[in-house]
Amino acid sequence: MTLKNLSHFQTERAHLNDLVMDYAGLSMKRFYNLDSQVYQAGALSKKTKELLGLTASLVLRCDDCVRYHLIQCQQEKVSDQELEEALSIGLIVGGSITIPHLRRAFEAWQELTQSPAPSNSSQT
Amino acid sequence: MTLKNLSHFQTERAHLNDLVMDYAGLSMKRFYNLDSQVYQAGALSKKTKELLGLTASLVLRCDDCVRYHLIQCQQEKVSDQELEEALSIGLIVGGSITIPHLRRAFEAWQELTQSPAPSNSSQT
Amino acid sequence: MTLKNLSHFQTERAHLNDLVMDYAGLSMKRFYNLDSQVYQAGALSKKTKELLGLTASLVLRCDDCVRYHLIQCQQEKVSDQELEEALSIGLIVGGSITIPHLRRAFEAWQELTQSPAPSNSSQT
Amino acid sequence: MTLKNLSHFQTERAHLNDLVMDYAGLSMKRFYNLDSQVYQAGALSKKTKELLGLTASLVLRCDDCVRYHLIQCQQEKVSDQELEEALSIGLIVGGSITIPHLRRAFEAWQELTQSPAPSNSSQT
Amino acid sequence: MTLKNLSHFQTERAHLNDLVMDYAGLSMKRFYNLDSQVYQAGALSKKTKELLGLTASLVLRCDDCVRYHLIQCQQEKVSDQELEEALSIGLIVGGSITIPHLRRAFEAWQELTQSPAPSNSSQT
Amino acid sequence: MTLKNLSHFQTERAHLNDLVMDYAGLSMKRFYNLDSQVYQAGALSKKTKELLGLTASLVLRCDDCVRYHLIQCQQEKVSDQELEEALSIGLIVGGSITIPHLRRAFEAWQELTQSPAPSNSSQT
Repeated sequence: MTLKNLSHFQTERAHLNDLVMDYAGLSMKRFYNLDSQVYQAGALSKKTKELLGLTASLVLRCDDCVRYHLIQCQQEKVSDQELEEALSIGLIVGGSITIPHLRRAFEAWQELTQSPAPSNSSQT
Repeated sequence: MTLKNLSHFQTERAHLNDLVMDYAGLSMKRFYNLDSQVYQAGALSKKTKELLGLTASLVLRCDDCVRYHLIQCQQEKVSDQELEEALSIGLIVGGSITIPHLRRAFEAWQELTQSPAPSNSSQT
Repeated sequence: MTLKNLSHFQTERAHLNDLVMDYAGLSMKRFYNLDSQVYQAGALSKKTKELLGLTASLVLRCDDCVRYHLIQCQQEKVSDQELEEALSIGLIVGGSITIPHLRRAFEAWQELTQSPAPSNSSQT
Repeated sequence: MTLKNLSHFQTERAHLNDLVMDYAGLSMKRFYNLDSQVYQAGALSKKTKELLGLTASLVLRCDDCVRYHLIQCQQEKVSDQELEEALSIGLIVGGSITIPHLRRAFEAWQELTQSPAPSNSSQT
Repeated sequence: MTLKNLSHFQTERAHLNDLVMDYAGLSMKRFYNLDSQVYQAGALSKKTKELLGLTASLVLRCDDCVRYHLIQCQQEKVSDQELEEALSIGLIVGGSITIPHLRRAFEAWQELTQSPAPSNSSQT
Repeated sequence: MTLKNLSHFQTERAHLNDLVMDYAGLSMKRFYNLDSQVYQAGALSKKTKELLGLTASLVLRCDDCVRYHLIQCQQEKVSDQELEEALSIGLIVGGSITIPHLRRAFEAWQELTQSPAPSNSSQT
C-alpha cells in the first residue's frame, strides 16, 4: 500500500516511460511533450506550477502522480509549510477519500527531505 | 449550459449557502469554516491558493467551483496569462473531458475582467 | 444551476426513461430492473438503502440522482436531522467539491418537505 | 437539465472554442490539435474511434462530450443498435450514476436521427 | 493487488496518521477531527453511518477507506447480509469498475469475520 | 506499483470472484451476468466491445479492469497499433492522470504478446 522507495520509483517509471515510447504513435508522443511543457516557468513560476500539479494529483487521487510532483516540489525548494498548505487545499476540496493518498504523500515527502535529492526525470 | 451571469450566480450561491446553514449541524458548519480558512494567506499567498483551488476544481470538473475561484482570482489580480497557465495544467492533467468546463471558465473570466469586480463572498 | 421544480423533474425523468426503454436491448433493461431491486427492503430497510443511494450520489456529484433519492427519502419518512447527518458524511468523504450539489440538495429537500409528497417513480 | 437543441449546442460550442483560442497559449492550442488527431482514421476506423470517445465520455459523465461524439457517430453512420450496445457497455462499466446522462444521450440521438445531420465541428 | 493483512494495515495506517499529524497545520487537524465526528451516533446510528461511509468509499473506489469502514462495520455487528446489500448498492451505483474493490472488500470481510476483532482506530 | 504477472493475476481474480459469489445475493449475481453479456458480439464485434471496455477502464483509471480487457483484446487479435490508438484516445480524454495506468497497460501488453495467450476468464 505504501509507495516504493524513491530510487526504485524513479527507475521503474523511467523504464516504463521508455516502453510507452516504444509503442507510442505521434499523438501519444506529442501528449508526453505537452505534459513537460505546461510545467515550465512562464507567467507562473515552475514552483507554483508544480504545486498546481501536486494538488490536482491529490484530488484525483493518483499516488504515482503525487510522488512525481513531490520530487519536483523538493527540487523547487518548496518548504514543509508550503507543502502542507497546498495539500490542505487538496484535502478540503477532495475530502477524506484523499486521506490515504495524503498519508503516502507525507511519507514520500519525509523520505525526500531527509535524503539527497534524486536525479530529475521528465514526465508525469 | 453556460453559467448564469455573475451577479445572479453570486446571489443564488449566497441564498443557498444560507439555506444550508439553516439545516447544518456542527460538523457541516465546521467544514464550511475550514473551507474558508485553507485559502487564507500563509506560507503560500492567497493568490497561489486560489489558483490551487481553481485547478483542483477544473480537474474535478465543477463549474460552480471554477466560477467561484475565478472571482477570487480576479480579486487577487491574477493576470490573463497566469490564469491561462493554471488552466493549461488542469487541461493536461484532466484531459479533454475538462474542455466544456474550460470553455465556460474563459467565458466567465471574460465577463469578470470586462466589468467591475463583484463583491466577495465567503465559501465554495 | 438550480434543479427544476419537482413535478417537472419527475415528468421529464419518466418521459426520458420511456425513451431509453424504446432503444434499450436486454442488458440495459435488466440493468434498470437491478437498479430498482437493490433498493427494496431486505436485511437493511428501504429507508437505510435510500440513504446509501443518496450519499453515494452526493459523493459522485450527480444532481439528478441526489434529487431522485431525496424524493424516496421523504417517502420513507427520513427526518431533517437524519438527512443532514447522511449528507454530512457525503460532504466529509467527498470534500468541498460536493458543496454545489449539497446546496441544491437542501433546496430540493426544502421544496419536498414543504409540499405534499409527489407520486413515486421507479428508477434512478 | 436536458441539453439544448442541436444547432444551439453547436453554435455555442464553436463560439466558446473561439474564445478559448483567444486566450490559449501554445500548449493549450496543441492539446486542441491532439484532441482532433486522435479521432482520425488509422488502424481503427473513425467510426470505432468515435464510439470509444462516446463511451469514455459516458463513463466520465460529461453531457457536452457525449453530445459531441453522438453527432460524430451519426455522421459515421452508427446504427441505433450499435449505439445502444456501446452505451450499454458504458452503463455497465459506469453504473446507475450514468443513467441521467444516458437519458440525455438517447434524447439527443433521437433529435439527431430524426433530422438532417448538422454541419460538423472540430474539437470536443 | 490484495490488501495487506488486517493487523499490518492498522499498524501502518496509525503510523502514517501520526506522520500526517507531525506535518499538519490547524486546518488539516480540524479536518481529521471532523472526519471522526461525522460517524458518531446521532439521529442515525453509528452502524448506519459506517454503512454510508463504506458505500461512499466503494463508489469512489478507495481500498483503504473500504477496509477501514469494514473494520468499523464488523465492530457495529453488521451481518453478512446487511454488508452484501450495502455493497450491492455501491456496485449498481458505481458499476463494474468497482468490482476489483468489491473483490478485495469481501476478502477483507472474510478475514475480519473469521478472526477476533482488531482494536479500533480513529480516522479514515 | 506494477501489476502482478499474468497467471498470478488471473488465478487471484478467479479466486476472489468465487469468494464474491459465496457472499452474493441475487442482484449481485445478476450484475455479474450482465457484465459478461454486454461484451458478447452483437451489432458491434466482440473486438470492438473489448476496446470500448479497455478505453472506459483507462479513463476511469482501474489497473485490474485495464489488464482484464487487455487479455480479452489479445484473444480478439487486436494489433499493437489498434491498441495504441484506443489507448491514445483514453489518454487524450482522461489526461496525464491516466499515464501511470498507461505505463502499466503497455507493460502488461508486452507480457501478453510475448507469451502464449492465458486461458480466458469470465467477468471484469
